[in-house]
Amino acid sequence: MKQIRGVIPPVLTPFKANGDVDYDAYCRNLEKWNSYPLAGYLVLGSNSESVYLSEEEKLELVDLTVKAAGQRLVLAGTGLESTRETIKLTNKAARLGAHAALVLTPCYYGSRMNDAALIRHFTALADSAQIPIMMYNVPRFTHVNLSLKAVEELSRHPNIAGMKDSAGDVAQLVSFQRVIPAGFNLMVGTASVWYPALTLGLTAGIMALANCCPDECVQMQTFWENGRAPEAEALFRRLSPVNAAVTAIFGVAGLKFAAELLGYSAGHTRSPLQLLTAEEQSRMRQILSEAQLI
Amino acid sequence: MKQIRGVIPPVLTPFKANGDVDYDAYCRNLEKWNSYPLAGYLVLGSNSESVYLSEEEKLELVDLTVKAAGQRLVLAGTGLESTRETIKLTNKAARLGAHAALVLTPCYYGSRMNDAALIRHFTALADSAQIPIMMYNVPRFTHVNLSLKAVEELSRHPNIAGMKDSAGDVAQLVSFQRVIPAGFNLMVGTASVWYPALTLGLTAGIMALANCCPDECVQMQTFWENGRAPEAEALFRRLSPVNAAVTAIFGVAGLKFAAELLGYSAGHTRSPLQLLTAEEQSRMRQILSEAQLI
Amino acid sequence: MKQIRGVIPPVLTPFKANGDVDYDAYCRNLEKWNSYPLAGYLVLGSNSESVYLSEEEKLELVDLTVKAAGQRLVLAGTGLESTRETIKLTNKAARLGAHAALVLTPCYYGSRMNDAALIRHFTALADSAQIPIMMYNVPRFTHVNLSLKAVEELSRHPNIAGMKDSAGDVAQLVSFQRVIPAGFNLMVGTASVWYPALTLGLTAGIMALANCCPDECVQMQTFWENGRAPEAEALFRRLSPVNAAVTAIFGVAGLKFAAELLGYSAGHTRSPLQLLTAEEQSRMRQILSEAQLI
Amino acid sequence: MKQIRGVIPPVLTPFKANGDVDYDAYCRNLEKWNSYPLAGYLVLGSNSESVYLSEEEKLELVDLTVKAAGQRLVLAGTGLESTRETIKLTNKAARLGAHAALVLTPCYYGSRMNDAALIRHFTALADSAQIPIMMYNVPRFTHVNLSLKAVEELSRHPNIAGMKDSAGDVAQLVSFQRVIPAGFNLMVGTASVWYPALTLGLTAGIMALANCCPDECVQMQTFWENGRAPEAEALFRRLSPVNAAVTAIFGVAGLKFAAELLGYSAGHTRSPLQLLTAEEQSRMRQILSEAQLI
Repeated sequence: MKQIRGVIPPVLTPFKANGDVDYDAYCRNLEKWNSYPLAGYLVLGSNSESVYLSEEEKLELVDLTVKAAGQRLVLAGTGLESTRETIKLTNKAARLGAHAALVLTPCYYGSRMNDAALIRHFTALADSAQIPIMMYNVPRFTHVNLSLKAVEELSRHPNIAGMKDSAGDVAQLVSFQRVIPAGFNLMVGTASVWYPALTLGLTAGIMALANCCPDECVQMQTFWENGRAPEAEALFRRLSPVNAAVTAIFGVAGLKFAAELLGYSAGHTRSPLQLLTAEEQSRMRQILSEAQLI
Repeated sequence: MKQIRGVIPPVLTPFKANGDVDYDAYCRNLEKWNSYPLAGYLVLGSNSESVYLSEEEKLELVDLTVKAAGQRLVLAGTGLESTRETIKLTNKAARLGAHAALVLTPCYYGSRMNDAALIRHFTALADSAQIPIMMYNVPRFTHVNLSLKAVEELSRHPNIAGMKDSAGDVAQLVSFQRVIPAGFNLMVGTASVWYPALTLGLTAGIMALANCCPDECVQMQTFWENGRAPEAEALFRRLSPVNAAVTAIFGVAGLKFAAELLGYSAGHTRSPLQLLTAEEQSRMRQILSEAQLI
Repeated sequence: MKQIRGVIPPVLTPFKANGDVDYDAYCRNLEKWNSYPLAGYLVLGSNSESVYLSEEEKLELVDLTVKAAGQRLVLAGTGLESTRETIKLTNKAARLGAHAALVLTPCYYGSRMNDAALIRHFTALADSAQIPIMMYNVPRFTHVNLSLKAVEELSRHPNIAGMKDSAGDVAQLVSFQRVIPAGFNLMVGTASVWYPALTLGLTAGIMALANCCPDECVQMQTFWENGRAPEAEALFRRLSPVNAAVTAIFGVAGLKFAAELLGYSAGHTRSPLQLLTAEEQSRMRQILSEAQLI
Repeated sequence: MKQIRGVIPPVLTPFKANGDVDYDAYCRNLEKWNSYPLAGYLVLGSNSESVYLSEEEKLELVDLTVKAAGQRLVLAGTGLESTRETIKLTNKAARLGAHAALVLTPCYYGSRMNDAALIRHFTALADSAQIPIMMYNVPRFTHVNLSLKAVEELSRHPNIAGMKDSAGDVAQLVSFQRVIPAGFNLMVGTASVWYPALTLGLTAGIMALANCCPDECVQMQTFWENGRAPEAEALFRRLSPVNAAVTAIFGVAGLKFAAELLGYSAGHTRSPLQLLTAEEQSRMRQILSEAQLI
């Protein structure tokens, strides 16, 4: 797998008021994102409310994404709790044309998900998958954090091509960089540290913020790579409160509300995830306004 | 739904070495458990490695359990992250004859699973389910803890019949007792506080330990109800280290190893959950030996 | 040291509006508590705002307590972060007549306070102290929890006479009971599990609630020991919401507000600890009223 | 207070085998550090084992530091749990010549240390202190994290001159930068993110690593400020594992062991903090060796 460079939105899944996936809205969003120089798409990530989707819905979304993505990279979030189910879903996504699978750490039996368990899980998966595997580390949701030792070992598997680290811990990114082999795609998983990650040599990021502000996310990298660090940093600072709002503070519901305000068809969340309250909406509007986005 | 009284094992799922469910072994276990005066069975709980099962496997297990259970109560663990999928699975289990559904709190977007979200989830489910719903609170796995306020409100829904609280926090059980209406089945979800729960008037428990020590779990209650508190307490003390070993210390793998030693067909865990290491097995043998179980 | 039986309030320290200790108010409280059959007093505990007191104030409070206590047991909370300072303060309290020292686990360098460090700390202290030592385990404040192994070893030291466990975890109390030698004073450190602790054979408790409701705390034990379990349990249930309010919910400020309403001279908290807000006061009044205390 | 620029070691306190402070060793260390272009010293920080020192020892260390520091800035860590004791100690340090006080967030009653309490604490202190106050945020030890709102308000107090944030969270540093006024000294409190902090415009850091590797810490900043970013980054990467070892992994005992190997007189830790075990020492030697420091 060649080195990934650029910004990848973990695309959101619009739902209708009745809870069904709004595939038309989904395709409209892809069309709009296609107008930006994004490196690809992650379908079925945390921001896709993937845990709420049936397998049929998941595969339909992978299919639509592959068809819309053109030459862009399509990563599919196929991680489930069991190794065998993850393998099955990964290979179904592969058959639909996904280029690689981004696989969440299993987490339900968290205290038993030690290095040995996680290494066996990802190794078995990578051995059986028809596309490259990438690990997805997101302690905020899983309460599991991949260790340096596990990353060191797994990053050497010939079919493990990368990792999305959403911990937001720059020192951890630096430690991961030290133990991975050349060519391994370490990607930052949150725009909260996108600019710092760029200054540390990372070249790719999968970030919720790219759903509603794709241009700005790409622009940070372009500025940085063209030697315009101050402009990259200034843009990062301007967007930081927005990023906090669409992730840590309000989560997916916040992201959807912001995306709607910025021209996307984000639709409803699926129950039990709730839409923003009126007060939260008001705070979100203010944050977007202060960032000069609306 | 009538008041539940007694001990319910959250039955384990035996897997073959190749990872398939060993349905024959499952049925042998049920047959053996049927020889004890258990109040019923919970199929598809945490100790069933339910998160690792496909829907087909889940339904097969429900079906087998209903057929084997005779007059005993059958609870099915049908909780999934999304409300709509939970409703579907619950009603499939209902059609197979499950008497009630025990439903895990959704937890992936933990910081957004506030009272409002959880109340709407369980209310929508209870409104649509063809069998009574019970809430399943297990912060050790979900990192979500149902609040007093949520329990107070949900316990008044006509189709919410009970709750399994596995937090192991006696003070919390007492506070839940204060806010639930008469007839609501508050069940302790761990043998770590089975005796204290009995002294506080609880009459039912769903406990991992009942997989491998059903007789002892039942006996504690029988002693207590027959005015033989010292014998109940002594038995509780003797079993406590075993219970810690099959839950907090070694988890499901520990339970399976103990169950095998005590005559059940527990089989393999499903990947990524790992069997006990040799050293862990040795510690488990010692714990069982000290408790005079082997 | 003989076996402790009964209820011990961890006495609060009244402060004047200017922040000085109100020793007169302190003595008035002791006089009032002396009218109840309490087993003794803990001076300089968490509820004494001990971390806010100068050494001079601490010693004055120990002295006043010893003088007022008559035949009652006086425990002094002399734990500091360093072993040597803890030894010094313990022996100063000893010279003033404290009967034993209740010593908090050191906690600042929490990740390094492993079994080895804690065992050495308490052993060195017990070797040098002129009065018996008791361990004080309160993870809510220290984020350190004494392990079974540490308790097993330390409880065998000839000059370690007991332990206050305020974790509120009944299963942990049961596990501690299993490893301590006969005669070791395992005391429950919170009224949140006072009745369950009694049913499990504990005979002593040091509980914040005894500051404002000494009679009720004693009465629970008396009922229990006289074979009137239902009355003990009923009283426990009635007081449980009050206990939650004066500990987990509102902390020391809540305890002080309740104590004032119930006839004690609790005075101000010392900065930075803040008094209850008006809204919190209102909730507290309601809780006390529902418990028929006001 | 003028803008701070440069590296400040939070100096360690050498203890003799008998537990006494080794003031001679302390002065030898200062003399050695004086040979590097450090911006100043923090005496009585977390790495000074300040929580283990008596007031007399604290003041002696402040005095020795002021005398040795020449023109360098001397910050004294005078934070205690109570506001009044903190004020007293701060003004004693002021009289000995400390230029500013770095004050830990109070933390014992952690759940009550909300914005209101912390704002009142630091405001009262700043109102009464004879030297400028700086806030010290170190959630790893205190389990308290200053909020954006508290920092926004407190940074506007005329006598609050700065803040050391040791959370190691770059996104949080960026958010703090957004709300503080010009001239407020936001300093990074850990070398784990020293290079990222420099790229984000911070100009000062107080870091444990500067005890044993002062030259390298200073050199990173010099490289950065002279437009030699790649060399700054390379040095940062080389030192990162060492920093992890002397902070998160082995703590103060690790720092002392490394400092001894690198020519400082670090001496013993004070009980209950334990020296490294033989195995830990061996791992530390290897880490220093891999970083080409020994």
